Amino acid sequence: MNFKRPIVIFIMGVSGVGKSTIGNLLSKALSLPFFDGDDFHPQKNKTKMANGQSLNDADRSEWLLSLNQLAKEQLQHNSCIIACSALKESYRNILKKDIETNVKWIFLSGSFDQISERLKQRKGHFMPATLLKSQFETLEDPLEALKIDITISPEKIIEIIVNEYTNKSEFGLIGLGVMGKSLSRNLVSKNFTLSIFNRHIQGSEEEIAINFKNEFPELVNTLPFDDLQAFVNSLQRPRKILLMVNAGKSVDAVLEDITSLLSKNDVIIDGGNSHYNDTKHRIDSLKGQHIHFIGTGISGGEEGALHGPSIMPSGNKNAYKLVQSYLETIAAKDNNGNPCCTYIGENGSGHFTKIVHNGIEYAEMQLLAEVYFILKKSGKNPDEIATVLASWVNTANSYLLEITIEILRKKDGKGWLIDSILDKSGNKGTGNWATVAIAELGIPNTMIPSALFARYISSFKNERIEMNTMYGEKKSTLEIDNDDLLKAYQLARIVNHHQGFKLLYQASNAYSWKLNLAEIARIWTNGCIIRSQLMEELTDILKENASILMSKKIIPQVKEQKPSLNIIVSKCVVGEISIPCLSDAVNFLNGYSEKNSSANLIQAQRDYFGAHTYQRIDDPSGKSYHTNWKNTNHD
Amino acid sequence: MNFKRPIVIFIMGVSGVGKSTIGNLLSKALSLPFFDGDDFHPQKNKTKMANGQSLNDADRSEWLLSLNQLAKEQLQHNSCIIACSALKESYRNILKKDIETNVKWIFLSGSFDQISERLKQRKGHFMPATLLKSQFETLEDPLEALKIDITISPEKIIEIIVNEYTNKSEFGLIGLGVMGKSLSRNLVSKNFTLSIFNRHIQGSEEEIAINFKNEFPELVNTLPFDDLQAFVNSLQRPRKILLMVNAGKSVDAVLEDITSLLSKNDVIIDGGNSHYNDTKHRIDSLKGQHIHFIGTGISGGEEGALHGPSIMPSGNKNAYKLVQSYLETIAAKDNNGNPCCTYIGENGSGHFTKIVHNGIEYAEMQLLAEVYFILKKSGKNPDEIATVLASWVNTANSYLLEITIEILRKKDGKGWLIDSILDKSGNKGTGNWATVAIAELGIPNTMIPSALFARYISSFKNERIEMNTMYGEKKSTLEIDNDDLLKAYQLARIVNHHQGFKLLYQASNAYSWKLNLAEIARIWTNGCIIRSQLMEELTDILKENASILMSKKIIPQVKEQKPSLNIIVSKCVVGEISIPCLSDAVNFLNGYSEKNSSANLIQAQRDYFGAHTYQRIDDPSGKSYHTNWKNTNHD
Repeated sequence: MNFKRPIVIFIMGVSGVGKSTIGNLLSKALSLPFFDGDDFHPQKNKTKMANGQSLNDADRSEWLLSLNQLAKEQLQHNSCIIACSALKESYRNILKKDIETNVKWIFLSGSFDQISERLKQRKGHFMPATLLKSQFETLEDPLEALKIDITISPEKIIEIIVNEYTNKSEFGLIGLGVMGKSLSRNLVSKNFTLSIFNRHIQGSEEEIAINFKNEFPELVNTLPFDDLQAFVNSLQRPRKILLMVNAGKSVDAVLEDITSLLSKNDVIIDGGNSHYNDTKHRIDSLKGQHIHFIGTGISGGEEGALHGPSIMPSGNKNAYKLVQSYLETIAAKDNNGNPCCTYIGENGSGHFTKIVHNGIEYAEMQLLAEVYFILKKSGKNPDEIATVLASWVNTANSYLLEITIEILRKKDGKGWLIDSILDKSGNKGTGNWATVAIAELGIPNTMIPSALFARYISSFKNERIEMNTMYGEKKSTLEIDNDDLLKAYQLARIVNHHQGFKLLYQASNAYSWKLNLAEIARIWTNGCIIRSQLMEELTDILKENASILMSKKIIPQVKEQKPSLNIIVSKCVVGEISIPCLSDAVNFLNGYSEKNSSANLIQAQRDYFGAHTYQRIDDPSGKSYHTNWKNTNHD
Repeated sequence: MNFKRPIVIFIMGVSGVGKSTIGNLLSKALSLPFFDGDDFHPQKNKTKMANGQSLNDADRSEWLLSLNQLAKEQLQHNSCIIACSALKESYRNILKKDIETNVKWIFLSGSFDQISERLKQRKGHFMPATLLKSQFETLEDPLEALKIDITISPEKIIEIIVNEYTNKSEFGLIGLGVMGKSLSRNLVSKNFTLSIFNRHIQGSEEEIAINFKNEFPELVNTLPFDDLQAFVNSLQRPRKILLMVNAGKSVDAVLEDITSLLSKNDVIIDGGNSHYNDTKHRIDSLKGQHIHFIGTGISGGEEGALHGPSIMPSGNKNAYKLVQSYLETIAAKDNNGNPCCTYIGENGSGHFTKIVHNGIEYAEMQLLAEVYFILKKSGKNPDEIATVLASWVNTANSYLLEITIEILRKKDGKGWLIDSILDKSGNKGTGNWATVAIAELGIPNTMIPSALFARYISSFKNERIEMNTMYGEKKSTLEIDNDDLLKAYQLARIVNHHQGFKLLYQASNAYSWKLNLAEIARIWTNGCIIRSQLMEELTDILKENASILMSKKIIPQVKEQKPSLNIIVSKCVVGEISIPCLSDAVNFLNGYSEKNSSANLIQAQRDYFGAHTYQRIDDPSGKSYHTNWKNTNHD
């Protein structure tokens, strides 16, 4: 038998459950070599067991490593079958080391009484039945395994296993939009077997899956469906299903239809931009049915999804392990070759992290829009602006900078394409959610909201035209030093990233998510829209300090760039150019480093009209004071 | 009988229900004059009725007005009792014209059969029983009346009525915090009879109501309670109860306790800063029990609550009418003597309006804090700053400006009090909710969020000190022209009000509230924290244009003030003074009047990485375009 890629089928379970019998029968059915793990025990282990002694973990380690080695050697040539009790998760971790994506588990399961009876009737086996009890105590339920009841006949068991691995797919994907299609092709390119499903809607979504399969030759072995039951039946158990449907009601609609079709330990991964509170709610509501729900942010757009996105999964950690190898394999790789995918934390923390990612992205895009506008108002045409930006690639490179340069250079029949694009920008909810989270968590993240509001202003195009008529055209003489502009841009980006990671930091504290900021920065160094040179620097900086602006590596840069930011912002203000995010950066820096701010007046006002009280600087106890302000001491 | 203030008891109901009988008995019991309305019919009406003809509304108008006149004359001296069928709401409106707060309604209610039987047995009455049917058809259930079943004996009915008006209060108030206490005193000062309730919490809230009553001599007739059942029983029906408890769980806790104690048509008014969605939910959930819920914003702080706040009630309009006279009487009065209280709209629109009020307040306070800080950084001491601000009172006066001047002049033993106040400002939720609403509704209101975030920054005092140590003290040489500063301040306030009323306008459209912006501005001209000269101007401006910046009266001011705002903001940026709201004002003005903004680049970026498509300026059809940006037309 040749699978799409070589696999190792580990047959596991307690002693006496029938691993060798099934292994030998399966070997014949699939024409694959079978190895009985017990044959690879060192003599000292065999002796111990014959003497009625349990093996300890140290005894097992050498043995398990040799089986892992055996599996690796076999995988060089072809698939194979290995029987091994593999009772603990830690044992299975040794067995699958470095070959996780090639390993399948079959768990032969029976009751103590059934197996005890079998052992009594067995001859020539060196393990006394008295050790069975300890085996049952050691056994840690393998979530990752296809569980088979040994009351089924061996012939039927073989039929089940053969059907599972020859006719079924390892992974399922629901929702063949732009992202779903790209991720499907990505999965197949990594030699995973795949089933794909898209709903059937008369007149608007018909035969999406089959047409998509037919469009791409590499999908020849992919199983396409528009029938959900058939799709679910086509998946190896425990099933792994990635949802790529619209956030909100569409996710709930799929869950409502699919839940009754699933089995214990199946995993649903929601890869859309769902709200983190919805994700938490879904995880909780599926728990009762022992179905796992992983909420994951996926960034990279169409191309990232195809060649390797950045992936931010969250939920129950053990459930995550069931899909980890798939997600890590399709993810982008960082500079060190590690996957841009890491377990983020419990509940909806992965989707929250994606919201912050998108929030940072909003502000990064807005900063580039402001830079573009400043250069445009300085009299430059798109090609000239692109030339300026291209000179920044060495010092301030990012994916967004690169595509901006390409965009500015793009021409159509009428000239630069950028000049024909309507200046009303859309948004799909994550910038809004980020802003709401910022407000609710009490975090002074100003740039994400401003970037969102800049989009909102742009959407009121008619009002802008009306205002323009009423107030007249702006002054247009703006003289900007390009080096100042670069420094201002770099510093504003630092502030944006400071605020974004602070948002993660504060949310992590508020929700007890224990987020690893440096690790999040690392998975954002490739695959995602906000990948950049700065993000690579942050992977180190965030290991030492959650507050980027307080990092010793950053402080000198900020000090050097600040005068340029001041100059650019003040020139734009006088020149009447709207630069909300650059302004926010400068105001945040000024306010955030102000030892004694003007908030004392606000506290006095609140106490005056609402008796809200205030604290005093000369009383560190934090005591509340109230003043009757009306009794002035002079008239 | 002398009531706390003279009242007119109208006894109403269909002909034959026993109005005269009850009126005469009640007259004796209360020692008050009784007038039978029928005696005041002009002869033509009597003739018509004797001929078996129904009266039409024109017939009645003259008659009802004469009864209203009678009531007014009596009220000059004392209370009285008047019997009148008053079947329609429009009739009752004539009867209570100009004396609404002095009118009580008793609705004698019986079935058609009961009354028909009575009429047959009655002698000397000029109305044939055949007209009864038309009376029943005409009758509009009086929500405002004490409804009494005529199967009860006349003696018992008199007992009920006497008890209602001699032993019970007209109005109840729950929650004796700062606002609840002031509103209680306000109600009593207007001669309303009042019951007050505060929960009992061992060790923290004990005997609050009785102690409060004993503290103020004017509360001598006020009934204090810490037992909810007794409190409810002490109120005239339909009961009118104002909740002044903390928004959120406290409101729900009171509702859970009180609902089962109430009767049909009782009204609960939530005067706290509840979320508008909670208010909608509460209105809906109480509907089933025929209990009315009015959500109202109340602004004015402690002093406003005492002498006259601005009141923003919403909910079912008919339910509002039951409490309208109370709320309008205790409200502040505008320049024309009209109450600063108006029905805002359905559902939670009143609480939403309060949220926007508070949002505007946040930004107004922040602008004053920024002005204060600029003047402080220019080397002025608090008295000198107060002197500058005092010179603005003629042109830019507002309550907040006035109290700021008082605050700055206040000294304690150590010098100016403002210098001893800790610069960490608090917030109680409404600024947050306003920001969330702004984000969710897609409205480019930038100043409220910035004012909120300025408070958030202030709360990170330790980080600010740390940053200050790392980055060093700011430059402190700032030379500002006071006239520029005044103009900048005035213009920023115009932008703030533009944004605030736009938020109301867009929410009104989104939720179909039909808000009257000019009327809302009018009730904000007195009593509330954001009352100001500008607000008075807006009451006219908003009648013509929901967009303040597009008003012909405003445009010349903006044009004149804009250069000053530009100068102030640019000087502060170079001088490294944080001025987020002034900056927002200038950026909003620049962005909102930009015919061709930089959002075309954002749309291009979104199409590049996410295939989100864009529209073209040369295709007004709104068609979506997608470009394969990678195929550049030059290398």
